[in-house]
Amino acid sequence: MTEPHSLTPTIKFCSQCGSAIEYRIPPDDSRLRAVCTVCATVHYDNPKCVVGTIPFLGDKILLCKRAIEPGYGMWTLPAGFMECGESLAQGAARETFEEACATVDLIEPVYSLVDIPHIGQIHIFFRAQLRDHDFAAGHETLAVALFAHDEIPWQELAFNSVRVALQSFIADATRGEFNTHHHVRTLTVS
Amino acid sequence: MTEPHSLTPTIKFCSQCGSAIEYRIPPDDSRLRAVCTVCATVHYDNPKCVVGTIPFLGDKILLCKRAIEPGYGMWTLPAGFMECGESLAQGAARETFEEACATVDLIEPVYSLVDIPHIGQIHIFFRAQLRDHDFAAGHETLAVALFAHDEIPWQELAFNSVRVALQSFIADATRGEFNTHHHVRTLTVS
Repeated sequence: MTEPHSLTPTIKFCSQCGSAIEYRIPPDDSRLRAVCTVCATVHYDNPKCVVGTIPFLGDKILLCKRAIEPGYGMWTLPAGFMECGESLAQGAARETFEEACATVDLIEPVYSLVDIPHIGQIHIFFRAQLRDHDFAAGHETLAVALFAHDEIPWQELAFNSVRVALQSFIADATRGEFNTHHHVRTLTVS
Repeated sequence: MTEPHSLTPTIKFCSQCGSAIEYRIPPDDSRLRAVCTVCATVHYDNPKCVVGTIPFLGDKILLCKRAIEPGYGMWTLPAGFMECGESLAQGAARETFEEACATVDLIEPVYSLVDIPHIGQIHIFFRAQLRDHDFAAGHETLAVALFAHDEIPWQELAFNSVRVALQSFIADATRGEFNTHHHVRTLTVS
């Protein structure tokens, strides 16, 4: 039911025994997998979650200017790869603290989910109330700033998933009701 | 902000060059990572998404009796690990077809999200309208059946995330309004 994905196989050696990998379809499977030629361990490659927040204070939204690639110098919402051992909300709050030195109160449930199948990622954002004006650039951030809805630098956003989350947020804020949104991106996002 | 997770480090050799791994905290990082002792590649371990559906037809819900461990012989909703190259919805529909031979129309947005941090998984379910009575047991399933809301075999469910999704669904159906739900499980499931 799903088209083959275009992600390049990147596993060359077995993480369990160090022997060479070959890509083949295991018994009872329908997909090409990295299989160890010696110990037969099958290595699965699964999509990763990027978690973040839309931090707001009054009518303004906090954005971060990126100090790293991809998107150096562009604006983004605080977000990053979810880690094992944490929940979606813990990961989103952690990234917000790391990138914007900001403490937030997350609003449940999750707000914006964007699938990006061709790079094997799901970008998940929560709405998040900033506790105060105590925020600053983290080490992956050049600057942080609050933007009114009509001040968002749409032409300087680093990622389409951020654009989608901000568009949903502003539209919902305008009509006065927030619902969870889910989108699929089919084009390359930087 | 997050407690160390209890997942056992499982990477022993580098997938890029086959050399031995050591676990240490790389520069500009705060977590123990699997780092190659020769080529210095850092191997990240991220949570995995399990995607599935709550398939319904009229007032009944389809459940699958598991033919594999964990939970052999217990009832579950059709679900499984999301694959690279597919969206959340494509993965959920694929698992529904593989496990219950059922074609469904998924309802957006995502309905039930359950974090299970201690095993590094997020279980995500969509509501899904069954097209017809054309369903059957897939190769990981012993039997499929439709259950009225008061017939759900609560004592014989394989996973807590399935219990949570079904509880939300039945409560929402009873009050006549469905919203996205997000929970965190802190106890061992399955």
